[in-house]
Formats: sequence, structure tokens, C-alpha cells
Amino acid sequence: MSDGHFSVTAASVWQDIELIRSQSPLIHNITNYVAMNISANALLALGASPVMAHSQQEMKEMVSHSGALVLNIGTLSHHWVESMQKAADIAIQKKKPVILDPVGCGASQYRTDVARELLEMNRTTIVKANGSEVLSLCGGWGANRGVDSTVSSRHAWEHAQKFSRERNLIVVVTGERDYIVAGDRSWVVRNGSALMPKVTAMGCTASAVVGAFCAVNPIYWVGAVHAMAVMGLCGEMAEKLCQGPGTFVPHFLDALFTIDLAYIEENLKVERLDA
Amino acid sequence: MSDGHFSVTAASVWQDIELIRSQSPLIHNITNYVAMNISANALLALGASPVMAHSQQEMKEMVSHSGALVLNIGTLSHHWVESMQKAADIAIQKKKPVILDPVGCGASQYRTDVARELLEMNRTTIVKANGSEVLSLCGGWGANRGVDSTVSSRHAWEHAQKFSRERNLIVVVTGERDYIVAGDRSWVVRNGSALMPKVTAMGCTASAVVGAFCAVNPIYWVGAVHAMAVMGLCGEMAEKLCQGPGTFVPHFLDALFTIDLAYIEENLKVERLDA
Amino acid sequence: MSDGHFSVTAASVWQDIELIRSQSPLIHNITNYVAMNISANALLALGASPVMAHSQQEMKEMVSHSGALVLNIGTLSHHWVESMQKAADIAIQKKKPVILDPVGCGASQYRTDVARELLEMNRTTIVKANGSEVLSLCGGWGANRGVDSTVSSRHAWEHAQKFSRERNLIVVVTGERDYIVAGDRSWVVRNGSALMPKVTAMGCTASAVVGAFCAVNPIYWVGAVHAMAVMGLCGEMAEKLCQGPGTFVPHFLDALFTIDLAYIEENLKVERLDA
Repeated sequence: MSDGHFSVTAASVWQDIELIRSQSPLIHNITNYVAMNISANALLALGASPVMAHSQQEMKEMVSHSGALVLNIGTLSHHWVESMQKAADIAIQKKKPVILDPVGCGASQYRTDVARELLEMNRTTIVKANGSEVLSLCGGWGANRGVDSTVSSRHAWEHAQKFSRERNLIVVVTGERDYIVAGDRSWVVRNGSALMPKVTAMGCTASAVVGAFCAVNPIYWVGAVHAMAVMGLCGEMAEKLCQGPGTFVPHFLDALFTIDLAYIEENLKVERLDA
Repeated sequence: MSDGHFSVTAASVWQDIELIRSQSPLIHNITNYVAMNISANALLALGASPVMAHSQQEMKEMVSHSGALVLNIGTLSHHWVESMQKAADIAIQKKKPVILDPVGCGASQYRTDVARELLEMNRTTIVKANGSEVLSLCGGWGANRGVDSTVSSRHAWEHAQKFSRERNLIVVVTGERDYIVAGDRSWVVRNGSALMPKVTAMGCTASAVVGAFCAVNPIYWVGAVHAMAVMGLCGEMAEKLCQGPGTFVPHFLDALFTIDLAYIEENLKVERLDA
Repeated sequence: MSDGHFSVTAASVWQDIELIRSQSPLIHNITNYVAMNISANALLALGASPVMAHSQQEMKEMVSHSGALVLNIGTLSHHWVESMQKAADIAIQKKKPVILDPVGCGASQYRTDVARELLEMNRTTIVKANGSEVLSLCGGWGANRGVDSTVSSRHAWEHAQKFSRERNLIVVVTGERDYIVAGDRSWVVRNGSALMPKVTAMGCTASAVVGAFCAVNPIYWVGAVHAMAVMGLCGEMAEKLCQGPGTFVPHFLDALFTIDLAYIEENLKVERLDA
């Protein structure tokens, strides 16, 4: 599971978790109303320090304090988009990773336009999207009816590779399997639980967690693979303890707090894919 | 428990649940900040697909994709009200059900005015309200001090019947017992748990669930009876497994995900009332 | 543990809980998006009635109905700040307690300015803040990088005493131990759980709970001590039943609902400190 100088192993995942727990990086989120609470709780459970701030007056300071910026258009409106643009400009200038979660891209022209503008103006380091959202970003508006995907991540992965190369972007495609694409390199994460799409804002939470890992790991695509592996592993831990999507959530947050090296070594399912 | 061609039975409740699970209707919510997460989770657990969108720029597309529109004024402000009005106009024109939850109506003139305007401009198919809210809609402003009811649903039911006939609206009155009124027809649901008023946004969640049932059942008052029965049944399931209002919530969401025909057959308490 | 005519005992804590449960005071919250749901659930579990309202059009009525006003700048923006100012003016005029939670004060000039303005215009009765926030209020901007404290409450307590005397304000400093300062009087609460800072919005929830106790207890600093004791006691109850910060939350809410006199008598750790 190595790629040149970098490899993803249980030990490399664990090293980043220990860095997050010891450094407690500040993660600045401009995210949707549905996802705010669970995203903040996931970041805290993992060991990071979340801040939610959307007012233009404080964008410069909040981005400066932060180790990563997470933008999520799940409940977007005019003023929030302006703040996202401003925050992204500052973050890119300060060489901090910007994670974009284009929730519902393809379900309205407005969402598609906002997501594309953030990508085309080089305001994004990593895009984390579901299958439908990836297709709407690559191939034109209209692939999506809401915020849940109707396209497999496997299918979207093929489009994501071209998109990643053309835009020089890291693309994370979530779904039954999660694909992390950095140009010609691709990784697949087979960890996860079928209950995750039955819980709202799990994808948004994944974006926040990607932010935490990229705040401590300067090789962003490795950070993204680590993040998605931890999401999947914690999802599996929660699934074993819960009786449905309601009891899944508290156990998932517990898992982010209690996950250890032994568990990762035994359960990690990450694989390098040929381009 | 029949009414002309329509009857509410365990089988009819179950049929709608199976339709929601197989069709996964998109439910468009313009709701309050407190209720967003639990409403989305309830819809997902039930099998529907929630979308939360309040920007005027995307109202037309989101309403077009959706099977029902749920409006909730729990944390209202100017721009959100404009979006609600626009969304309701499009939904009514496209013959989609519009569920209004007039949270806190009667506690401020602003809330009362906004709720009445949505009703009077024929922008509503179903009103789902607690006792105090029903009274403030029927009889004038001032029956309510906050968002929790101080009036029994039994008392409000009498007013709701007149209101339903005059406005040609379906009225759902929630409380210790839930009443569903469609002109001269009334149904009472005796399922439910005393813990439900101790959990925030359970009423808002009921409105979202009414939306899901009315997205698959063209006889809206039947869909509303089914929805309130499922809310009550899942509340009873959760009450048996929890130790208070905190642990109630995850078990309630689990129940929406796991409820089956056998449980409904054994526990359904729905009754047709004489006008 | 007495102070002149007033003393904090298990019996005095319990008396206020019984008042909250019997009177169900309306608590008006203008709070951040992350904290809204858990704050509302905590107030309901405790026996109070929460209302979240931020529109200027309804400030006068909502404040008039309420027993306390809780202001929280965790996700502030221009219009919300205007509503906070208006609501505070009305509450102070009507002699109702105003609790300010200056979330992230010190992390941006904007937050510091907004918090100070609310303090300097005599729009605040009680400030509830973590160590970093207290320092930034007392000593100048810059003590904080995000919303989590980097300063011990013990250290901040010394500054809080001077601040309390100068401003004639009650100051609640949260942290490993909680300090309640009213001029020359100080109390320390040693109840609590190490999991609480791992759960988002627990501090915000404490502010809401202070509001509930001050709505029934006219001696606000006694109400604040009671509130922080109950927060800590319920945190301890939850810690015993949970496996991490995720399962902590539902058990914490259950504890607010089920806490009784016997438990308080056995576990209360409150102490009067010499000035």
C-alpha cells in the first residue's frame, strides 16, 4: 500500500491521529445548519478543535488561527457564499488546505455555480463529494435531484480521475466505497457501514475530518486517505454497537474518541488502485 | 376504522411505509435551526430523502424535485419567510402538498401574521400545530407564550373542525392525543409517549414525517393519519428502551428505521371520530 | 457553605429544580447554530420551556414572555447582534436576568467588540465564559485562538474577581472547576466530568441552564451556583453510564430529567471561597 515515498498503513493512520490528539488543530468550518453540531462533535471527539464562523468581519482572523478550512454548501445563501469565497482566498494565500463539500451540487443551478466558482477560482485544495455531486461537477448540471447520491462512487471514480488531473485537485468520492484521487494516483477505502447514508451529515462530517487530518499531514492526499479510513473504521465500530441509525451516532462519536492502533491494524481496508 | 373508500388500518400504514422506503421521496424542508438535524435524520431513518434549502435562487428547482414541501416558522426571519412564500406558491401550482408548522404562532404578532398569510393566500395544504397554536390561528393572537402548548389537543380539536371546514384545510392537532381533521372527518391517534414533549422539535419532526407520507399517499388526510400513527408508535417503541428524554431520541430514530407490520398490527390505536 | 442570608446546599439546589419543574419558566435564547438543539433539549429535560427567536420584529414580545434572556455569540453576524442588543435592552428594562456567553471572545476583534459592547452598555447581568474568554474580556484582545479555552479557570478566576467588582457583574468561569464570582464573593463547583469539554456546546448549554435557575431564583449568583452544580452533577451521572463523548450526551440529558435530592445530597461539591 505504498506510493513512492508515501504509504498508507495502520501505523501512518495512527501517527496522524496522535498528532491531532496532541496538537488539537483548529478547524474552521463554514458549513450547513444540519451538519454543524455533529461536525463539531466529531472534531472534538477526534481531538481537534472546531470553530464555526461565517461572518466576513472575522474571516481573516479565524482562517489565520486555523489549520484547515472546510467549506460546505448544504444550506447556502448569498452572504455565506461571500464569506466562503473570502475565507478560501485567505486560506489559499496562507497555504492552508481548503476542503470543499459541494452538497447538493447538481440539484440546483445555484449550488452548481457556487461549487464551480470555488473550484475554478483556485479556491479549493480538496473536493469531497458523493457520486452524483462528482458527476454534476464534471459533466454538467443535472445529475442530482437532492443531496443523496443516485450514482455509485465506483462509477464516479472514473470521472473523478480526469477531473483531478485537469484541475490539479484532490478528489474524494464517497459512497459504498470511498475513492481518493490525486491525479494519476487513486486509493480505495473499503471500510464503512451501510448505516452511514441513513444518518444525515455523515458526508459533511467526513469533510470536517479530512480537514483535521490535512491540518497535521502536509501530504494532503495521504491525509484524506487517513481521514476516510478513520470514518469507515469508526462506522464499523458503531455498527456493531447500535440497533439502527439513531443509536449509530453516539457510538460513532465514541469510536472517534476511543479508536486505537490495535483496532486499525486489525481492520484497515485501504488499497492503492492502478490508474 | 374506514371512511368511505378509505380506511386506516395497520395494513394501510404499512403500505405507505413500504412506498416511502422503496421510492425514497425527496422532502423539501424550510425549517428552523433547532429542528433541522432531527428532522433530516427522521426522514432518512424512515426511508425518505430530506433536503434543507432556503435560498430563493433554488426554490423553483428544489420544489420541482420534491414530493412535499414542509414549512416551519420556528426560527423565522424576513428572508426565510420570503422563501417560504415563494416555495409554497410553486408547490401549490405543481399540486404538491404543503405542510405548515406554525411554531410559536400566538407568541408574537410576527409569527401569527406569517402563519396566517401562508394560510390565507392558499399556500398551505395541511397545518400541523399544537393546541395553543391552533387556538391562536382560529381565535386571534395571544393564546401562546412560547413554543410549548398550554392547551389540550382535545380542546383545540373542536376549534380545528370549524377551521378545517372554513379554510378547506387538513388540520393536525398534536398533544397527548393527536387529532387529524379534514372538514367533517376526524381521526384520533392514541399512540405516543409522555416523553415526546420533553424532546425539542418532536412536533417539527412530525411535520416532516407528514410530508413523507403525503408524498406517497395522494389522499393527504390518510397520509397525515398514517404519519401521526407512526410518530406515536415509534415514540412508544423508544420509551420502552430509554431512560429519559436524552436516550429517547436515538431509540426513536432507530424505531423509524426498524418498525414493521407485526408491531403496527399489535399496537395501532387509531379511531374515526363522529363529527 | 452559607453567605450571609444565602447558602448553597443540596436542599437549596433541589428547591430551585422543583421550582423550574413546576413553573416551567420560558427561557429566551439568541444562541449559536451549533448549540441550539442541545440547549433546547437541556432546558426541556430540566423542566423549563425554551424559545429560540432572533427576529427583531418579535424581540419585545418574546422577552416579555420570558423569565430570562440568554445571549450567545458563537456564530454571530450583524443582524443577530442587533437583535441581541435590542433584546438585552428590553430585558434589563423589565428587570429580567441577561446571561451573556461570549463564545470565542478573543479569537476575533469582532467577537471581542460585540461582547464588550453588551457588557459596557449595561446589557448583561451574568457573564458565563471559559478561561480564555474571561482573560480576553479583562485584559485585552488576543488571549484566544478559537472557542476552546487554553487557560485554566483557576487562573482566570483571579481576573474575574476584579472584573466582577469593576463592572458590578456576576461572572461564571467554566473549566476543570467552575467559579462563580459576585464581587467579593466567590464559589467553586468541583462537580463535573472530563468528557464535558469533548462535547460541543456544553458551555453554551450551561449558559442556558443558568438562565433557567435565574428565572426562578431572584438571587442571581445563587441561581448561577445552583446551575453550575447541576451541570456538574449531571455530567458525573452521564460519565458513569457512557463509553465516550457521543453516548455522554443522551445520558447527560436524561440526568437533567431524573436528578433527585438524594443524588444531590450525596454528591454536591460546592464551596465558598475567601476573597
